[in-house]
Amino acid sequence: MCRHMMCDANIGNGGILNRKMRTYRKELWFNVRGRREFINITPDVDECLAESGIVEGLALVNAMHITASVFINDNESGLHHDYEKWLEQLAPHEPVSRYRHNLTGEDNGDAHLKRQVMGREVVVAITGGRLDFGPWEQIFYGEFDGGRKKRVLVKMIGQ
Amino acid sequence: MCRHMMCDANIGNGGILNRKMRTYRKELWFNVRGRREFINITPDVDECLAESGIVEGLALVNAMHITASVFINDNESGLHHDYEKWLEQLAPHEPVSRYRHNLTGEDNGDAHLKRQVMGREVVVAITGGRLDFGPWEQIFYGEFDGGRKKRVLVKMIGQ
Amino acid sequence: MCRHMMCDANIGNGGILNRKMRTYRKELWFNVRGRREFINITPDVDECLAESGIVEGLALVNAMHITASVFINDNESGLHHDYEKWLEQLAPHEPVSRYRHNLTGEDNGDAHLKRQVMGREVVVAITGGRLDFGPWEQIFYGEFDGGRKKRVLVKMIGQ
Repeated sequence: MCRHMMCDANIGNGGILNRKMRTYRKELWFNVRGRREFINITPDVDECLAESGIVEGLALVNAMHITASVFINDNESGLHHDYEKWLEQLAPHEPVSRYRHNLTGEDNGDAHLKRQVMGREVVVAITGGRLDFGPWEQIFYGEFDGGRKKRVLVKMIGQ
Repeated sequence: MCRHMMCDANIGNGGILNRKMRTYRKELWFNVRGRREFINITPDVDECLAESGIVEGLALVNAMHITASVFINDNESGLHHDYEKWLEQLAPHEPVSRYRHNLTGEDNGDAHLKRQVMGREVVVAITGGRLDFGPWEQIFYGEFDGGRKKRVLVKMIGQ
Repeated sequence: MCRHMMCDANIGNGGILNRKMRTYRKELWFNVRGRREFINITPDVDECLAESGIVEGLALVNAMHITASVFINDNESGLHHDYEKWLEQLAPHEPVSRYRHNLTGEDNGDAHLKRQVMGREVVVAITGGRLDFGPWEQIFYGEFDGGRKKRVLVKMIGQ
């Protein structure tokens, strides 16, 4: 056993249930004017959960586009500035000729790389009818190639 | 509420159901001859879904090996070239002495790092009996240490 | 069809079942003394699974804190050294003035970036009452800003 580990008995509203399953689906739409932006979508996912009536289960939240991310981190503007700067260092937008993908006529080669660092999706536990989050967890939509309508999928399964 | 957000009512074949659950499992096997390659496995996961009979739920697709990835992005060869080049910059294969892991007799230290950037797994919504994808989403197996048989796990749960 | 692909019939204890669903939840607590550490939590997740009584389903294991990761890779100390060194190159801790997030009084800007590379969560298949792993897969808690109590959430759904 790991020396740092303390296994608590079932905490909160969790525990073991035994019922029929239900599923829920919704699309969230975005139209970011600039090229890149981080948008807090936690209130929207909360609303979806209330609408679903699911009490125990899993929520999948994923970008439906391949130049965008859904990720969980802090709702702090300084950090978002740090992410923007860091991702631009790891995968610079310019020169656009840097990416073979841009020979297709696109200029978003960098966005496909940035999205892999930040991830496509998050899976969040649903416990007692709430998103089962730690103290600072918030869900963000990360746009890396804006200027057009794009979607996030919310799919929930549970009981 | 976020200014970019438009919450649509349940779109497509989703919605709320209330039935018993079923699960499905299959392994996909690969034997990449070279060291690195990206393989489109979307048709294979589609086939699994048809076989499962699941209409609403979640599909987990994960590499069962720790020097390989499963990820979702574009089926475009220029982009795959860009990923290959970028990952080799972030975590170069050589000199193999660069990685302490290679003191075990392996030469795949870099592959364990590349796999973390691209990810181990994807979770995809199943809606109306189909993989619930945006317009360009395709599932890829990313091999970073080929030359032997390796596996991807497809696990689906739903109803 | 992909030339490398061989689709096996249902292998192992998987297959299609049709029963009611159950869910399970537990928190694992950590208190890492130093700033960074990787801890193998596979035995703890195994214990959770035994306790849950779930035979077929999905296990979500996620960091509840935004400067920590849960990821799957090799239980090899040389590799962990390589991860530590590589993450420090990609997102150095110092100078702490490098990160605007640290203007909030924190010194953990780097930890929020490292966590994105290694990921927040893993989703693992449950098959035949076991974590459905490849030969070397082990689950790790990655701490990037230790010195205080932090949690991992284990949520399982299935039958």
